[in-house]
Amino acid sequence: PDQGARAAASKRQGQLTKPPGSLGRLEELAIFLAGWQGRERPMIEHGRAVVFAGNHGVVARGVSAFPADVTVQMVANFRAGGAAINALAKAANLTLDVVPLDLDRPTADFTQAPAMGEAECLAALNAGAASVMDADLLVLGEMGIGNTTAAAALAAASFGARAADWVGPGTGVDAQGIARKVETVEAGLVLHREHLDAPFEILRRLGGREIVAIAGALLASRLGRVPVVLDGFIATSAITPLTLLNPAIGDHCIAGHCSAEPGHIRLLDRLGLEPLLALDMRLGEGSGAAVAVQIIRAALAAHNGMATFAEAGVAGG
Amino acid sequence: PDQGARAAASKRQGQLTKPPGSLGRLEELAIFLAGWQGRERPMIEHGRAVVFAGNHGVVARGVSAFPADVTVQMVANFRAGGAAINALAKAANLTLDVVPLDLDRPTADFTQAPAMGEAECLAALNAGAASVMDADLLVLGEMGIGNTTAAAALAAASFGARAADWVGPGTGVDAQGIARKVETVEAGLVLHREHLDAPFEILRRLGGREIVAIAGALLASRLGRVPVVLDGFIATSAITPLTLLNPAIGDHCIAGHCSAEPGHIRLLDRLGLEPLLALDMRLGEGSGAAVAVQIIRAALAAHNGMATFAEAGVAGG
Repeated sequence: PDQGARAAASKRQGQLTKPPGSLGRLEELAIFLAGWQGRERPMIEHGRAVVFAGNHGVVARGVSAFPADVTVQMVANFRAGGAAINALAKAANLTLDVVPLDLDRPTADFTQAPAMGEAECLAALNAGAASVMDADLLVLGEMGIGNTTAAAALAAASFGARAADWVGPGTGVDAQGIARKVETVEAGLVLHREHLDAPFEILRRLGGREIVAIAGALLASRLGRVPVVLDGFIATSAITPLTLLNPAIGDHCIAGHCSAEPGHIRLLDRLGLEPLLALDMRLGEGSGAAVAVQIIRAALAAHNGMATFAEAGVAGG
Repeated sequence: PDQGARAAASKRQGQLTKPPGSLGRLEELAIFLAGWQGRERPMIEHGRAVVFAGNHGVVARGVSAFPADVTVQMVANFRAGGAAINALAKAANLTLDVVPLDLDRPTADFTQAPAMGEAECLAALNAGAASVMDADLLVLGEMGIGNTTAAAALAAASFGARAADWVGPGTGVDAQGIARKVETVEAGLVLHREHLDAPFEILRRLGGREIVAIAGALLASRLGRVPVVLDGFIATSAITPLTLLNPAIGDHCIAGHCSAEPGHIRLLDRLGLEPLLALDMRLGEGSGAAVAVQIIRAALAAHNGMATFAEAGVAGG
């Protein structure tokens, strides 16, 4: 980030008509965006939400409460404007792009083979990287029946701990479903155990196309200094292998919210990210991040719109 | 609240294209507003923020980091559009009313006498009640140098516990300032100890005009079924004496945020209110509540804008 812009924004916050620090995280958000956007007064003029969609071979193992057909049905719903992310992106004044990734060709069941071939994995990385374009704030969302299982596998492969520590109910499976998810993740970790020391190999073997695309978007946005608002457990899991490249790879990310999926708070703790919101959401699609954009917009409204003590003729503290 | 409208809104939430409950508190907010607004699809068409301002006799005891003149200076800043609440109300699409209450005549020092006479207290209640008008969502804010001390006194008188449990740094006093605030609250509780069993008498003796106005607005909004978004420690303290009338008097209120003022979380716990946001804000003016309105708007955008499973042709779970 641009330390000069950060310092200028921080100085401005100290001059605005309020006790120093009294806007709390709103002040931090404005300074954070100043650094990544490289200007004292950051703005969101091209805020974009991108929802990547993929299908998962592990769905055949009974890891989801919904059938795999729902992925393509929900993509149609996104395109028709009827999903939560449509309403929430509109409310946050974000453009919404929907990027389905080979939905008629699910990834391989990662308990049997790598989820993706090399070319498939690279195509997903490229699709993600291409989505950043001219955004000045990026929400990265996903849709993919079965993808909490892939996300748990990525977290376990990247950060260790038991599979059960990363598995949760997802869209709403019962205890038996959770047990199947744990077994699936454990089987994947065993099958691929000789290949889990390289970030892109972890992504290829255990991830899914929509998660790999988020990883590609995270890399491109970091290199382009575009701040990102992370959504829930699955979107956040895309960072985890990248921390093997650089533990601070998530530094341009704001954790939009903490989802109700129990592994999410553990992921955020490991990444050193403090969520803006905790609203017990667990939908994905970028929905929690889109709500968080409202908070970021409020932060910038105060930062850019308030008068200084000198301008307003108010005595400082 | 209208139980029929609540039930209809709850049924609608179960039909929208998402796993049941996956929008978490956004679903609760939509159902809450449906009940208080009496319609399955609640809306915010006349959202209003009102900032009441008052001056406090206890300021002479060194309880604030800012001089009393700042109250009138900040009212001028509100009117000129330069304060945080101006920016945040605009961002949340709220109209903003500023109601200064006899700023050139501070309340009496409550360690020496009742803060207000009977007529003054009633005038403040009426000013608050008059502010509700045609609002369909109300943010109640305050400005008053010294008013965290009055708020702490109200909380202590209404809920018990030691003065020190309700006193905090406010706009930023040091340990000596906090000690002066504790002494001031304790002296007030002793002086008025024979008169603290009646809610309006607690308000009159220990409150301030802006806090009493918030109490008036809370009563009028409750009777008019207008949902309220509470701000921080001071705004919330206005409820505390009213719980002697009815412990559920805050049931039409959403706790917009939990402020950094340490007494606020204790107040919310006592009132059974769970804050929407926790952004380390401690400014008052209705600022935290105005940010919370963004979350409420997102909740209604999803509730009113999403397609049902049947409309979208998506398979249910």
